[in-house]
Amino acid sequence: MRAVRQDTFGDADVLYIGEASTPTIGSHDLLVRVHATALNRADLLQRRGFYPPPPGESEILGLEMAGEVVEVGADVEGFTLGSRVAALLPGGGYAEYVKIPAGMAMPLPDSMSYEQGAAIPEAFLTAYLNLFWLGKVRKENTVLVHAGASGVGTSALQLIREVGAIALVTAGSAEKISVCKKLGAVAGWNYKEGPFLPFVQKETDGRGVDIILDFIGANYFAENIQSLAVDGRLIVIGTMGGTQVQQLDLGYLLQRRLQIIGTALRSRSVSEKIRLTREFYQFARDGLNEGRIAPLVDTVFDWTEVAKAHAYMESNQNMGKIVLRVSG
Amino acid sequence: MRAVRQDTFGDADVLYIGEASTPTIGSHDLLVRVHATALNRADLLQRRGFYPPPPGESEILGLEMAGEVVEVGADVEGFTLGSRVAALLPGGGYAEYVKIPAGMAMPLPDSMSYEQGAAIPEAFLTAYLNLFWLGKVRKENTVLVHAGASGVGTSALQLIREVGAIALVTAGSAEKISVCKKLGAVAGWNYKEGPFLPFVQKETDGRGVDIILDFIGANYFAENIQSLAVDGRLIVIGTMGGTQVQQLDLGYLLQRRLQIIGTALRSRSVSEKIRLTREFYQFARDGLNEGRIAPLVDTVFDWTEVAKAHAYMESNQNMGKIVLRVSG
Repeated sequence: MRAVRQDTFGDADVLYIGEASTPTIGSHDLLVRVHATALNRADLLQRRGFYPPPPGESEILGLEMAGEVVEVGADVEGFTLGSRVAALLPGGGYAEYVKIPAGMAMPLPDSMSYEQGAAIPEAFLTAYLNLFWLGKVRKENTVLVHAGASGVGTSALQLIREVGAIALVTAGSAEKISVCKKLGAVAGWNYKEGPFLPFVQKETDGRGVDIILDFIGANYFAENIQSLAVDGRLIVIGTMGGTQVQQLDLGYLLQRRLQIIGTALRSRSVSEKIRLTREFYQFARDGLNEGRIAPLVDTVFDWTEVAKAHAYMESNQNMGKIVLRVSG
Repeated sequence: MRAVRQDTFGDADVLYIGEASTPTIGSHDLLVRVHATALNRADLLQRRGFYPPPPGESEILGLEMAGEVVEVGADVEGFTLGSRVAALLPGGGYAEYVKIPAGMAMPLPDSMSYEQGAAIPEAFLTAYLNLFWLGKVRKENTVLVHAGASGVGTSALQLIREVGAIALVTAGSAEKISVCKKLGAVAGWNYKEGPFLPFVQKETDGRGVDIILDFIGANYFAENIQSLAVDGRLIVIGTMGGTQVQQLDLGYLLQRRLQIIGTALRSRSVSEKIRLTREFYQFARDGLNEGRIAPLVDTVFDWTEVAKAHAYMESNQNMGKIVLRVSG
């Protein structure tokens, strides 16, 4: 089969379409003909050699895909040849074929294109994991979503709206904030205009927020802690603004009963990912079928333009997901 | 009624037995004749003026007690005059009478003295809150309990044994470690002999522990983080070794999916405390009745010796709880 390859680590232009072995499946697996895959920041790191795939997994980039089932393992029920599915992957999505455990497959609604389908797994499963499993979000909560117009951010906003909770966002432009408000955010703050803490205090009447989804890390840490309500949970999903925190007051942590939670999806076990996929699909199925929940797709590139797509992500201009159409 | 009073903040000798108003109860309350109360470290802080009671609560010391019901609110079911109960209090336990919401009352087994009963609420409810609600302890977990011979420590060890999980402890003497092992700890480390991290690594084959119950705070922080397994939870209950952490690596937090949880019992709402009391009693009732779960009482003082009891706690010699018998 064909797949996106690289011979060295480096900038986007190291990527090219070459040859790779087509995967062979076991009795609990599906072989899927990939129609679309989507970019994640982890792909950029992996391309540069900073984020190696888990031991034993494909070295091909690509953490998610949508496509059609072309081979069904002997012990698999519920899927047939031609079933349209999307799934999280441990790697290998930038290719014509992938093998997945059948438990990882989410059926795609008929109304949804493969390009949309490929934009669902990483963003929505990350949002679901962090809002529900770790954040324990409930209707009466207020959630601050940093990078609100990102893939995970726009997914989180839709899940928060589905639960009936209140969402606040930060983003880097008025246009991005406007997109967030269309997805249900009640208020947004352009971080280029200054610290977000006064915004949070104003919007919550000084109470603070119950949950923060953060991708920035060290640079936001002190303000994040100050933005939390009693029993608040700071969920650190990324560290784009640094990893080294210089000051943490445990007395304040106890007094306010705060939680600081480090999280990652890729490193979790297959059984956890299957459980997560099942739970998310159960929660979101009606919303997906009715179009109330949908991934925000920024741009679709043909996979022959993978280098251009990577360079575009690195320029931080996208709102929502960047998708690659895998042409046959 | 008589109660322990103080006219100024200060050392143990400011405490004396004086007069206070007997509480009056509402329709959902019980009036309890206190037979015994127990000391907590918070009492020492409050005596010195560093830990004021929550607004509207008694200024008398005492966060727990055991006694007999002498008046029953009109809307209360399940308790009658003479019922033997123990309960957590927002304050006021160093007195002849306390008022409690009936939901807070735990029935005392006939086999258990009031002196034992008074030693249950703070230690066991703190242990239950942190192990179960925050730590999500399960049979397959390993838990590191610092200050294993303390009131909370010895309670936690019994709950961990009841769940079937594995307990490791740190404590300040071989004698204390021996007490912990009798309560089910599989191994202990005398912190006076050096860092505990090598001990944890050895005992877990380098995997780390799933849960840490910590009372030390800043001084143990770096070692605690290093002692956690993937998905591990550091539960900070106290900060006897300082509050100011100088370094936290969020990258490590994400990579290992760690949680840092600040916790407190006293500041929680009455409804949460009632739910906690109910859940704990449900879990522990059989164990309490059969003597498998019992508080470790170090010393019982008559309440006329309250100053001596406080000075004894400040000397850090106790293993388990220090109880005051409230003589009529």
